[in-house]
Amino acid sequence: MYYIGIDIGGTNMKIGVLNEDAKLCCKTSIPFVTGGEQTADALRDGICALLRENGISISEIASIGIVIPGSIDSEGRTVIDAHNLGFHNVPFPGIVEKRFEGIPVYMANDADGAALAELYAGAFIGCKTAVLITLGTGVGGGTILGGRLFNGGMHHGSELGHIYLIEGGEGCTCGNLGCAESYCSATALAREGKKAAALHPESRLAAFEKIDARCVIDCAKDGDPTAEKVFAEYLQHLASLCASVFNLLDPEVLAIGGGVCGAGDFLFSPLQQLVTDRCFYHEKRGRLVPAVLGNDAGMIGAAMLHRNAIMK
Amino acid sequence: MYYIGIDIGGTNMKIGVLNEDAKLCCKTSIPFVTGGEQTADALRDGICALLRENGISISEIASIGIVIPGSIDSEGRTVIDAHNLGFHNVPFPGIVEKRFEGIPVYMANDADGAALAELYAGAFIGCKTAVLITLGTGVGGGTILGGRLFNGGMHHGSELGHIYLIEGGEGCTCGNLGCAESYCSATALAREGKKAAALHPESRLAAFEKIDARCVIDCAKDGDPTAEKVFAEYLQHLASLCASVFNLLDPEVLAIGGGVCGAGDFLFSPLQQLVTDRCFYHEKRGRLVPAVLGNDAGMIGAAMLHRNAIMK
Repeated sequence: MYYIGIDIGGTNMKIGVLNEDAKLCCKTSIPFVTGGEQTADALRDGICALLRENGISISEIASIGIVIPGSIDSEGRTVIDAHNLGFHNVPFPGIVEKRFEGIPVYMANDADGAALAELYAGAFIGCKTAVLITLGTGVGGGTILGGRLFNGGMHHGSELGHIYLIEGGEGCTCGNLGCAESYCSATALAREGKKAAALHPESRLAAFEKIDARCVIDCAKDGDPTAEKVFAEYLQHLASLCASVFNLLDPEVLAIGGGVCGAGDFLFSPLQQLVTDRCFYHEKRGRLVPAVLGNDAGMIGAAMLHRNAIMK
Repeated sequence: MYYIGIDIGGTNMKIGVLNEDAKLCCKTSIPFVTGGEQTADALRDGICALLRENGISISEIASIGIVIPGSIDSEGRTVIDAHNLGFHNVPFPGIVEKRFEGIPVYMANDADGAALAELYAGAFIGCKTAVLITLGTGVGGGTILGGRLFNGGMHHGSELGHIYLIEGGEGCTCGNLGCAESYCSATALAREGKKAAALHPESRLAAFEKIDARCVIDCAKDGDPTAEKVFAEYLQHLASLCASVFNLLDPEVLAIGGGVCGAGDFLFSPLQQLVTDRCFYHEKRGRLVPAVLGNDAGMIGAAMLHRNAIMK
């Protein structure tokens, strides 16, 4: 049997087919279409084309899993709010099920899906307690506790980006001041890069028309002192966030994913010691590693939702 | 059958006997004696006297549970470090078992014991996810996940006091700068009271020879503007810590215990709204309540350890 995983974003919808060993057999990407029914129609067409191209019969599909960037009810049956998709109180799995009679459809948040993918096919294999932090536009992630996906004690989610790092500090998208997201996101790194470029017109950063996180990382790698300083401060903040997670949950593995993670060893090498220094149990802390599955994580996790490993 | 619970502190050892309904039947307190064997001897004598006075036979004792202020190995068989007791790598349950043949002896950290007590007999009854924060000399507490005590993914503990609140801020006992403990402990409240008294000799605080957390609370209650300001700032920090916990774990109940909690409604009334304002899910957050069991919590939790509800 095969398991379909779908990662719906505001621009594209990624569809993948996994086998019994959680290996990705084939995948495709189709444009996102607004409106629940229309979205489901587009998915039906995309799935049927992908299966046809790869010689897989619909009767071989055991389940369909969907991850979306938004909040979902505790039963996984209704999208409460997914602003980027324009979905508000949409019973989406039911809508998709109507198009695939007899095939169960599961749904979860995309960051949770990514953590589940790491659990079954990536950095968290064999773990009971593990945390994924994704550093992108915001700071998100997912938490594995007791070997299952932990979606918050009341199913509102585990908001890793919204624990305080510097109470009263930079403004956060959530309305508070000083959340981890406002210091550790790619957006935050870009913001600090812009500030530094304005103060240091001699910096290579100042030559960019638009400064994003990648500019800062690239200029720091090239030895630009201004960018190096910005990146070093970013690492201090990120290390503190990691230490907060190690101190509170004591995970076996903390994996870091998202765009900023593209910096590779330039980020991970200095980060290891910075995190160790801040941990309550220092050398006894769990492993700190890059996330394994990258852009396919949400899709792979979606296909794994049939295992229903969500902590209730 | 009855269950014995023991809370060992650096000054006294509290011994209690609970019945099948987790109700405390009788209790006593004896001085702490140093040295593992000597400690166990004192406990044997104290337990036998307590049982005799209350007409309970040793054959009616199903288990003995012990909580201590320190770190314990993952099997609960060895005290790794308990500085206040002078215990380092002491296989204490085994030492006690030699004195009570046939009765199993369990051991846990005292803050974890307090959380377990709230789970079985206090603020967390019926909860699957709940957090206890104790505000005393330090900031400690215990975490219930999946209806069981969570002692960290690798059994090092869940260090609620050592998540960052203001990275780079006040020095913490752990060696870092800006942990929650360095802003939310009774010690921190006293420290800020002292600072404020030095700056404001007209304050009622300045009249105290030794300023502790209670002085600050009492003066604030009496309307002293300096103490009011110190306490208001303390509440802001405490609200931020609570919000971090709600945002990360989304518990059904967050209970606050420890000395500072003695402020009662003067603390809890303003705190409720401050926490709600900072939560990612605002009105959907779990309940924030005072811990129920007070000074007996550790002892009651110790007696409950036989249920073995520790997440593995």
